[in-house]
Amino acid sequence: MADSPNCDLKSLSPLQLFERVTEQGEKVRALKAGKAPKDEIDAAVRMLLSLKLSYKTTTGQDYQAGLPPKDLVLINNGTTKEEDEDFVDPWNVQTSNAKGVDYDKLIVRFGSSKIDTDLINRIERAIGQKPHHFLRRGIFFSHRDMDQVLDAYENKKPFYLYTGRGPSSQAMHVGHLIPFLFTKWLQEVFDVPLVIQLTDDEKYLWKDMTIEKAYEYARENAKDIIACGFDVNKTFIFSDLDYLGTSAGFYKNIVKVQKHVTFNQVKGIFGFTDSDCIGKISFPAIQAAPSFSSSFPQIFNGKENIQCLIPCAIDQDPYFRMTRDVAPRIGQPKPALLHSVFFPALQGAQTKMSASDPNSSIFLTDTPKQIKTKINKHAFSGGRDTIEEHRKYGGNCDVDVSFMYLTFFLEDDDRLEQLKQAYTSGELLTGELKKVLIETMQPLVAAHQERRKQVTDEIVKQFMTPRKLAFEF
Amino acid sequence: MADSPNCDLKSLSPLQLFERVTEQGEKVRALKAGKAPKDEIDAAVRMLLSLKLSYKTTTGQDYQAGLPPKDLVLINNGTTKEEDEDFVDPWNVQTSNAKGVDYDKLIVRFGSSKIDTDLINRIERAIGQKPHHFLRRGIFFSHRDMDQVLDAYENKKPFYLYTGRGPSSQAMHVGHLIPFLFTKWLQEVFDVPLVIQLTDDEKYLWKDMTIEKAYEYARENAKDIIACGFDVNKTFIFSDLDYLGTSAGFYKNIVKVQKHVTFNQVKGIFGFTDSDCIGKISFPAIQAAPSFSSSFPQIFNGKENIQCLIPCAIDQDPYFRMTRDVAPRIGQPKPALLHSVFFPALQGAQTKMSASDPNSSIFLTDTPKQIKTKINKHAFSGGRDTIEEHRKYGGNCDVDVSFMYLTFFLEDDDRLEQLKQAYTSGELLTGELKKVLIETMQPLVAAHQERRKQVTDEIVKQFMTPRKLAFEF
Repeated sequence: MADSPNCDLKSLSPLQLFERVTEQGEKVRALKAGKAPKDEIDAAVRMLLSLKLSYKTTTGQDYQAGLPPKDLVLINNGTTKEEDEDFVDPWNVQTSNAKGVDYDKLIVRFGSSKIDTDLINRIERAIGQKPHHFLRRGIFFSHRDMDQVLDAYENKKPFYLYTGRGPSSQAMHVGHLIPFLFTKWLQEVFDVPLVIQLTDDEKYLWKDMTIEKAYEYARENAKDIIACGFDVNKTFIFSDLDYLGTSAGFYKNIVKVQKHVTFNQVKGIFGFTDSDCIGKISFPAIQAAPSFSSSFPQIFNGKENIQCLIPCAIDQDPYFRMTRDVAPRIGQPKPALLHSVFFPALQGAQTKMSASDPNSSIFLTDTPKQIKTKINKHAFSGGRDTIEEHRKYGGNCDVDVSFMYLTFFLEDDDRLEQLKQAYTSGELLTGELKKVLIETMQPLVAAHQERRKQVTDEIVKQFMTPRKLAFEF
Repeated sequence: MADSPNCDLKSLSPLQLFERVTEQGEKVRALKAGKAPKDEIDAAVRMLLSLKLSYKTTTGQDYQAGLPPKDLVLINNGTTKEEDEDFVDPWNVQTSNAKGVDYDKLIVRFGSSKIDTDLINRIERAIGQKPHHFLRRGIFFSHRDMDQVLDAYENKKPFYLYTGRGPSSQAMHVGHLIPFLFTKWLQEVFDVPLVIQLTDDEKYLWKDMTIEKAYEYARENAKDIIACGFDVNKTFIFSDLDYLGTSAGFYKNIVKVQKHVTFNQVKGIFGFTDSDCIGKISFPAIQAAPSFSSSFPQIFNGKENIQCLIPCAIDQDPYFRMTRDVAPRIGQPKPALLHSVFFPALQGAQTKMSASDPNSSIFLTDTPKQIKTKINKHAFSGGRDTIEEHRKYGGNCDVDVSFMYLTFFLEDDDRLEQLKQAYTSGELLTGELKKVLIETMQPLVAAHQERRKQVTDEIVKQFMTPRKLAFEF
């Protein structure tokens, strides 16, 4: 069964859709009861969410089991009352809401703090310049202990940045750049060291992939990361498979975390089961350990109490909630966090982009023509069905993926606001908005490709060699 | 409650003993039901087994719940029908049989092969000399694929030895030397490289111990191991905490094993529970990985298909059953094994010696006087209660710990046979047998202490530095 059934669902009547949702719900329950393979259950759940969304889009009502559709008014703006079915963990993000995950609810559920105007203003005062548009536009929307990082910074105490990537394929998409672009900005404005973890061991454990392939992807991904413009004197990029065998401190921190986390805990946090391999079960400690400066004795001169700040997408938070729980018990400071929203798939904000579906993403290897075709063909539109209706009622920026992408990549605040008003008022048509996005993404991707070409194996080696950085500790 | 209650049990009547066993059985069940700490349950189980043994020794009957003792004939030779209660895993060995664990049953249960006369003769032919008395006397009694190792050896194909130790305390006892003395002999007669793993990470995970302490114990234990006389040009000793951070190949093999073993499997093999920390759950892969030559690229020049032979006590077999199961799935040869019996505690063969109970063991740090006192005071005797009875009925070598120790440490076959006959016939008294043991152990321990004094930190460093050994691969 295909993952994206929406195409052929438009022809179904509300009642037919209702029956499809009911059927699919039963199928999911049967698969879960029969302890079917996880990917089979996940595919069925994705299909269920898609069907529910189609039902809602078509009928304007949330699907309710046993209650067939009553009111058949067609609406298409995705603003109906949302169900509480967002699912977020490090491997899956699912929501039935076309606006994407409800991030305010996620903040409450995860127990993090909202990045509010006060915090943004404080950052502005601390760095003496306008904060990054990812902060101003709520793309980095949640945090843990960012105030403490600013306290430390204002008191001239050092901190360092830690982010990472799971190298699941050779090609990265533009969504993968978000944490790196933001981290680069943080590094520049705060002038701090940065460590970037490439979890090739994780990918080997989770995917049908050899160790050699995972390591190759790590090195290829390092090139794209370096092409974001990081300073080699201030940045250490490492593959787990590589660095674990070259660091005196990394494994010691891993085993310390592993001693203080039980299977019950990782079961609760990550949903592991008894059938999962012991590598997966113990992996969270490997993502936790770089939060402690003693994992990098060459950088921090063996110092163990340096504060860490982790910019990452919110789906990685479970790892760091666990890390923060363990930290005081192993005598280490808790890492602080800055969480970003998910980067939406071209098909809509119900899920994040995936490197395994080429049409869900604009890849960093795409040609200008591919970018144009993908946006025109696949970018989910918040516009109306006819030009007449669009002119009359206006488009919906909340669900329009082209507009969402522009909030990520169009730096000019005024221009973005103009586009929003013009699109919402109906003055700007979907095709015109897509054109702006195409003209934004084409040069951005081309420039990235140009910079990536300059990243030689020698430069990768420099970034990936454990060494002292241009800081004193 | 003390671990060794035997001393004051002799005064109890059979019925009183029956009641004590019943009480203790209820206590164990209550502790298990209440999910009490493992060490509390273990202590209670040990006490239960001791009480059952006392009951059996006193009444000549196995304890049966609800069936108070009928026949009060006192026998004291431990040869009553044994119960099937041997418990063997890497952390606990328990039996109610004074002769010790039933090793024939263990071979069947573990699915290994008995080291029979044919195999011993084949080893003799292969090496052109008399096999070690540990082989001749059944101390190394079980194996897996030793025939394949001999096939390879006869065809001039290389193999290597791997053994190890969990450094749980600074002081080692004489029982700890058994695998090392045998391994040293194997290394000499086959002229092969040897790797010795010190699982300081395991001890950190299992015990209430800091990482620094575990590493210190590893280095201290390395001195005792080196004092056995290993050749620095042919032997690599490593601490996990150390070597994991310095080897390109070790972690890669660990993560390969971790991918191919599920929590269900380690639960079945090692009895882990959901409350165990994820470090324990994934540790078996760390003990597995040295079975693969690619964990030691510096020794084997990166070669991945070198056969490994592991001499170890039988309680370590669960790790290597798991390893042998995984090996073909990660394209590696299965390690072969030679299993030894357990070294009995002075108090009797129901359990192995423990470094945590100073009176259960002769330590490598004991003075001649301490050795004498311990043997005289604590070595469980197979002799009769009075000299008259002993002269008449003779002693029982099967349960006499002094005699057992002599089978380990008295190399002279003829002398050992003479002692056995004299003791069994009643000619030799318990005190005289103990004197022979004292006179055997005192110079042995003193010589070890002398050699250990020569082991400087510099020599330890040489053994523990990853390097090429005196072999070509």
